[in-house]
Amino acid sequence: MASHRVTLLPDGKTVEVPTGSLVVEATRLAGIEVAQPCGGQGRCGRCSVQLDGGGFRRRSALRLSGADLDAGYALACQTVIEGDLQVTIPPPETLSRLLVTDRVAGAEALPFRYEPAAMQSLRVFQLTLPEPSLQDNRDDLARFLAGLTDAGHLPIEIPLPVLRRLGSDLRQAEWRPWVVLQEDPAGRRGFPAQVIELTTTPPRPLGLAIDIGTTTVSVQLVDLHTGETLTTTGEYNDQIARGEDVISRIVYAGKDGGLAELGQLVRRTLQTLLERIRRRTGVESSQILKVTVAGNTTMTHLFLGLPPESIRLTPYLPTANRPAAYRAAELDLPVHPLASVDVLPGVASYVGADITGGAYSAGLAETGDLTLFIDVGTNGEIVLGNQDWLVTCACSAGPAFEGAGVVDGMRATEGAIEEVWIHSETFEPTIRVVGGGRPRGLCGSALISLLAELFVTGVVDRGGNFKLDLGTPRLRQGEHGPEYVVAWPDETTTGRAISLTKVDVDNLLRAKAAIYAGFSVLAAGVGVDLADVQQVLIGGAFGKYINVEKAVQVGLLPDLPWERFRFLGNTSLHGAALALLSRRARQAIDDIASRMTYVELSADNSFYDAFTAALFLPHTEIRRFPSVADIWARDNGADLDRLDR
Amino acid sequence: MASHRVTLLPDGKTVEVPTGSLVVEATRLAGIEVAQPCGGQGRCGRCSVQLDGGGFRRRSALRLSGADLDAGYALACQTVIEGDLQVTIPPPETLSRLLVTDRVAGAEALPFRYEPAAMQSLRVFQLTLPEPSLQDNRDDLARFLAGLTDAGHLPIEIPLPVLRRLGSDLRQAEWRPWVVLQEDPAGRRGFPAQVIELTTTPPRPLGLAIDIGTTTVSVQLVDLHTGETLTTTGEYNDQIARGEDVISRIVYAGKDGGLAELGQLVRRTLQTLLERIRRRTGVESSQILKVTVAGNTTMTHLFLGLPPESIRLTPYLPTANRPAAYRAAELDLPVHPLASVDVLPGVASYVGADITGGAYSAGLAETGDLTLFIDVGTNGEIVLGNQDWLVTCACSAGPAFEGAGVVDGMRATEGAIEEVWIHSETFEPTIRVVGGGRPRGLCGSALISLLAELFVTGVVDRGGNFKLDLGTPRLRQGEHGPEYVVAWPDETTTGRAISLTKVDVDNLLRAKAAIYAGFSVLAAGVGVDLADVQQVLIGGAFGKYINVEKAVQVGLLPDLPWERFRFLGNTSLHGAALALLSRRARQAIDDIASRMTYVELSADNSFYDAFTAALFLPHTEIRRFPSVADIWARDNGADLDRLDR
Repeated sequence: MASHRVTLLPDGKTVEVPTGSLVVEATRLAGIEVAQPCGGQGRCGRCSVQLDGGGFRRRSALRLSGADLDAGYALACQTVIEGDLQVTIPPPETLSRLLVTDRVAGAEALPFRYEPAAMQSLRVFQLTLPEPSLQDNRDDLARFLAGLTDAGHLPIEIPLPVLRRLGSDLRQAEWRPWVVLQEDPAGRRGFPAQVIELTTTPPRPLGLAIDIGTTTVSVQLVDLHTGETLTTTGEYNDQIARGEDVISRIVYAGKDGGLAELGQLVRRTLQTLLERIRRRTGVESSQILKVTVAGNTTMTHLFLGLPPESIRLTPYLPTANRPAAYRAAELDLPVHPLASVDVLPGVASYVGADITGGAYSAGLAETGDLTLFIDVGTNGEIVLGNQDWLVTCACSAGPAFEGAGVVDGMRATEGAIEEVWIHSETFEPTIRVVGGGRPRGLCGSALISLLAELFVTGVVDRGGNFKLDLGTPRLRQGEHGPEYVVAWPDETTTGRAISLTKVDVDNLLRAKAAIYAGFSVLAAGVGVDLADVQQVLIGGAFGKYINVEKAVQVGLLPDLPWERFRFLGNTSLHGAALALLSRRARQAIDDIASRMTYVELSADNSFYDAFTAALFLPHTEIRRFPSVADIWARDNGADLDRLDR
Repeated sequence: MASHRVTLLPDGKTVEVPTGSLVVEATRLAGIEVAQPCGGQGRCGRCSVQLDGGGFRRRSALRLSGADLDAGYALACQTVIEGDLQVTIPPPETLSRLLVTDRVAGAEALPFRYEPAAMQSLRVFQLTLPEPSLQDNRDDLARFLAGLTDAGHLPIEIPLPVLRRLGSDLRQAEWRPWVVLQEDPAGRRGFPAQVIELTTTPPRPLGLAIDIGTTTVSVQLVDLHTGETLTTTGEYNDQIARGEDVISRIVYAGKDGGLAELGQLVRRTLQTLLERIRRRTGVESSQILKVTVAGNTTMTHLFLGLPPESIRLTPYLPTANRPAAYRAAELDLPVHPLASVDVLPGVASYVGADITGGAYSAGLAETGDLTLFIDVGTNGEIVLGNQDWLVTCACSAGPAFEGAGVVDGMRATEGAIEEVWIHSETFEPTIRVVGGGRPRGLCGSALISLLAELFVTGVVDRGGNFKLDLGTPRLRQGEHGPEYVVAWPDETTTGRAISLTKVDVDNLLRAKAAIYAGFSVLAAGVGVDLADVQQVLIGGAFGKYINVEKAVQVGLLPDLPWERFRFLGNTSLHGAALALLSRRARQAIDDIASRMTYVELSADNSFYDAFTAALFLPHTEIRRFPSVADIWARDNGADLDRLDR
């Protein structure tokens, strides 16, 4: 049998291996450790290496992107040596980048449709007015309005603060003022433009896009003239202290003073972010002349000070899906007091401006491809359709995917386990921890990852029940019933074990079932087979952390070819930024909101059936998940024909 | 010679007098004192009595109105007995009413042009909305706006406070809300109507008209549905403490914090008035849903918080003659926070909304008669014209007519001498004091009255110089030069004499000359002879106190037949009330403001000449004042031909 020479970098060691060996066998021979948390099953991707020379054949390339493959990356456990080869073991940071790419694929590629200033509702221009004299003794306001009329701008509203400074502003500018004019951001007819600022030198038109998430508030500071993003930053929503999900916030808002307090809390968060912007960019809040806001309907209601009560009561109506723009001062938002604050339009109580803006940002207004757009946070909002039609629904996933409602759950901060692999023979876990230190708990992505691994390795059955007889101490009867121990007490920062319990598994099953049932009902409602979906676009914080492969394995996402998924990052924030920059974008988001057909799942009889069917791993009908069925049947020696219930 | 029997009531005494006797001779015979402060010259009217029986002939009826004559009133010093007669000596309060009528004639008769609710910019109506269901699951705002659209109202602005209560208001009203809708009060195109209130029962639409005078702030509470005035009240403008005239207010506003302080002061005055309204009518301020404001340009600027600085600097431009309506909350005005506060349009820095509103209230928009409308306060504003054309100017009279800038001057409050008569032989004065007690000083009307009497009795010459050789102790060299003593120290509340000095006389001459020069220049500018003026309409506080006869004698008002003068009271407040009640009135006031040609006197070369010519009593050309010339020539034995300079 032929043997091949394998050089291992960066060490420079060389070994000879027989043809047909796996790359991991060559590294083992050289005494170089390559981690295989999944037990060499090609599932985890942690053994990725870079190959140079043509002497290899990939048996599987799961989890590697086309670009990675082009760059010669391969899974050491799944790659057969068929010639001389140079193998580079990547440093941990490269590995991390590799494995992250699949999660953020496309995030960089999001089109930034910048429109020139003329396409914006915020206008900046200079006026030249005749100087007053005893012969031309019009008052300042009449002179100014005549100048604006001559420039084609009418009708114009002059807010009181502008009028109060008009005389001195015009004189300081020697009758050649720069004018900042805000037309109605939503383009409503019959609403006058407002002069919000007069200056002597050309002002820099800065805008702020805000995404108010239930958990995280993100902002993006944009120069509206150049389209440049000056900075993007985010912070936990201070409202979390008054309830982790929208329902508890709504309940809190109903208490005496609760609505006002929740409003103050989100403003406090925004103030923190504005202060950070000031430190990073030197931009004072008062220089921000326009604001757009996206967020779910409850968040926009709390931000505007609208009681959200009716959102959770049948027939589930918000006060306003399309509020008008209000002035920042009216909303106590510490940017320029006359800046228009434009809350993007939503569709329903549980399909808000985060989804309409997100759908626009994801390109749903312009694609002919059948597209599934999802944004999973505490609630999962789903849009199905293309440029011609759109249906949408919301499913109450609960906070499990955000690490809440699970015994050892936590948010994806320092110390959170974010990914877990389980060895298919020893059932020992390998974990990755945010920040790289000792673990403190399990965040959402770890929960999905862990549930998928438990399922694929046969630690739990399709109903989510632990197989306690596998002979590993990791499986035990704990305080809360059967559990799998991810970390022992002496491995954690708290001194307590980190486990996933049967109760947690059931929570996760319900959460993923709600989302998948949403897909099913939406698709069935319009007579579409989920398998025909041409692209699955994933937005929101959820998309930042989860791993599609694992999400498919647990039956949260539909089983489609890898290349159809794209993670778009914070589509809600991006949609708000696009609306800030372009009237066309703003109008398109309005159109999306108008065109979306909202399906109220609680009023849909088929939802409960779909939900119940999805409570299994990955689903009652396993054939809906062919790739998962293959892995599972292989690893568990099961007969697929007997699996569907 | 025949004699006649004269019965004197209420005493019941009877005397016999020869035919041809004066009524005063009969009363003297009966031992009944009838005051003749003017020395029996028929000038003062204080000797008015009521006659019953036909046996008398009036030699003069000066100062008695047609109604009074019909009721049998006559001047005792000017009425000849020619038959048996019953003479009733009126009690002091009747006399006071008689002599006041000439000053307030017409005030009651001002037409109150009430328009039905449909003609108003504030609309009140009920909407019936479909109840929401799972099938009709539009959000509250969409449902409400659709209802308004169906009712023909669009575009509509929903202010944030209304949106914040929309959900609960609609539910409380069981989807049949009463809506208070405010259209742009000035009728500007392209400005949406605003919903300012939603109620479950029909709200009472109450409006407040405000006149902000430099000295006095007046308000009128009106039911906009019925047109009924609930109450009218006034109070000194608290700004007086920071300057008595507009110029000193403008100067004060330029100091650090001055503008804000003056704004607070006038709001404090308004708060006092609103509190009084509440006590009188039970109407809470928050029930007031609409406000109109009139006032001179400086007062409206201070009210709106606009710096008035440029008003007093050439070319004398205000910030805004026609500010938009703003919300009460923006102006810190404690009525309904969303009530529109509509400041009526002015024409120029010194011709404000008090004049446009006043001119409308005086009927200038609808009269074919050549009309002179004047409003004299600290400044004198003058309008000349009719329904086809209007010219206007303002003359800086200074505060003399308001009792300021004169040694013993004061405002027309308790203790102020308000009228003076001088005996033509003894030169002793008779005075009337506000409140009836001992005097403290001279108010504006007393100054005009006193100057006229001093002139007519020859105590001062036509140049305003005292004739110190008349042999009366009343004329003396005082601390401030030559003076006439109106009250000795033991007659006053202060223990100090009350005098009119030469300096005071010069001040008064300048003030009246400025006004009369204004008339002259305006009339000359349009080629009109003042003698052709068909009506002189007098508005403002000035008209409440002065005596036309005396004002003509000093040359302040043109010498026209008595019946051409009408005192209209507070035309500014009345104009504001009319604008509150009717869109047509509001539009007409706008039209008046547009049509008025403003003449800037300081830019008019003929003004100085006219002013200089008017510095004499009554004028350099005494023939302009034929009635005065007659009296003066008779009493002073002068040759009219030699009088004109």
